Amino acid sequence: MAKRLFRQSSGISLRGRRKAYEVVSKGALVRDAGAAGVSQHHPHVEAALKESGVQEGLGLVNAMHTTASVFINDDERGLHADYDAWLERLAPQEPVSRYHHNRTGEDNADAHMKRQIMGREVMVAITAGQLDFGPWEQIFYGEFDGRRRKRVLIKVIGE
Amino acid sequence: MAKRLFRQSSGISLRGRRKAYEVVSKGALVRDAGAAGVSQHHPHVEAALKESGVQEGLGLVNAMHTTASVFINDDERGLHADYDAWLERLAPQEPVSRYHHNRTGEDNADAHMKRQIMGREVMVAITAGQLDFGPWEQIFYGEFDGRRRKRVLIKVIGE
Amino acid sequence: MAKRLFRQSSGISLRGRRKAYEVVSKGALVRDAGAAGVSQHHPHVEAALKESGVQEGLGLVNAMHTTASVFINDDERGLHADYDAWLERLAPQEPVSRYHHNRTGEDNADAHMKRQIMGREVMVAITAGQLDFGPWEQIFYGEFDGRRRKRVLIKVIGE
Repeated sequence: MAKRLFRQSSGISLRGRRKAYEVVSKGALVRDAGAAGVSQHHPHVEAALKESGVQEGLGLVNAMHTTASVFINDDERGLHADYDAWLERLAPQEPVSRYHHNRTGEDNADAHMKRQIMGREVMVAITAGQLDFGPWEQIFYGEFDGRRRKRVLIKVIGE
Repeated sequence: MAKRLFRQSSGISLRGRRKAYEVVSKGALVRDAGAAGVSQHHPHVEAALKESGVQEGLGLVNAMHTTASVFINDDERGLHADYDAWLERLAPQEPVSRYHHNRTGEDNADAHMKRQIMGREVMVAITAGQLDFGPWEQIFYGEFDGRRRKRVLIKVIGE
Repeated sequence: MAKRLFRQSSGISLRGRRKAYEVVSKGALVRDAGAAGVSQHHPHVEAALKESGVQEGLGLVNAMHTTASVFINDDERGLHADYDAWLERLAPQEPVSRYHHNRTGEDNADAHMKRQIMGREVMVAITAGQLDFGPWEQIFYGEFDGRRRKRVLIKVIGE
């Protein structure tokens, strides 16, 4: 499902001297088109973090599309099914004609709602080179449309 | 609707030497009181970013009021009308007496709910001096109360 | 309810020279198990910020547990009661059997939903050593499960 990072990390050197701080674009991970639903994104963030070499800092992980979310919650399959059903209750896809947005030829207005509930992005703390997470925290990608290839950005700032 | 930045940017010089990193307060953009609803905020962020001179970094854009949101989604008028109707279903203003908060003399408890769904803030990645965005990502300001003058903060960190 | 910071702040010195920038882990504040509901977290963030010495920067404050939120809104007791009632309407705990997640022996699937609406984290701007906040903005901790000891992380980056 998830491809290699397609953009180079940009460990920009600054005025010829060693920098105290790094801003590392880990670029964006491509996700192929596929079924809507929740999927693991945690290992990709851990890999990008390791590659960045940042030991202390903050990281941004965001969906680059407006019908998708990056969020943090439990790695429990039943919970992810519950999210799907719950979001469908709060923002039903049908009737498609209920939404003005769908008059543009789309049928995914509901996906733009679902993404707002689950959020676009997470900010993560990096401590001693690791994600500074609680015991159950895992990063997920929520896809509410399912069509088109999607990208997830990772940007790290720190030392 | 949107006024000039009313606070100076604070490109604080640090111990007399050129800094590797900048923290730039672009201050807060004033928005006049007006109807509730979604409005463009994207150009203001782009202008503040350009003015900051930051090439690589992270930016925070947040509503400074508790009945308003800054969020990222499509620039599509039908979708914005759908958000209004959907938020009214999830957090109806009426009956006003339903909410304890309204006993304080307010009638905007629902606006405090709507803002939680749409979020207070966005974090944006800055790469090569630009917002590092997907093709449809645009920054919007959601006003759920409509009274009083409002401010939106922009703070950029990077190099 | 809230205990002292249990981890040391890590004002990591960098290559033996004075740093332009600081990344300060204020560690995580422990919150004892207790009733679900909204409680003040603002003073803890202000104290951590003061202790960090950072004058200009950004701060991350996040729940380290997946049934809790950190959010920013008004310090008004009636509003907090409204949030409780509203979240229960959008994501009712009962019937417990409605949620797949609860087949794992839990009964808190609803808490994982409520937390997504209220959010996991806030990013705050720090200007002149203070939280750069609007007049009504206050930081709260929302507990939707109530069992187990919980932690809230604060991480500051800036100068």
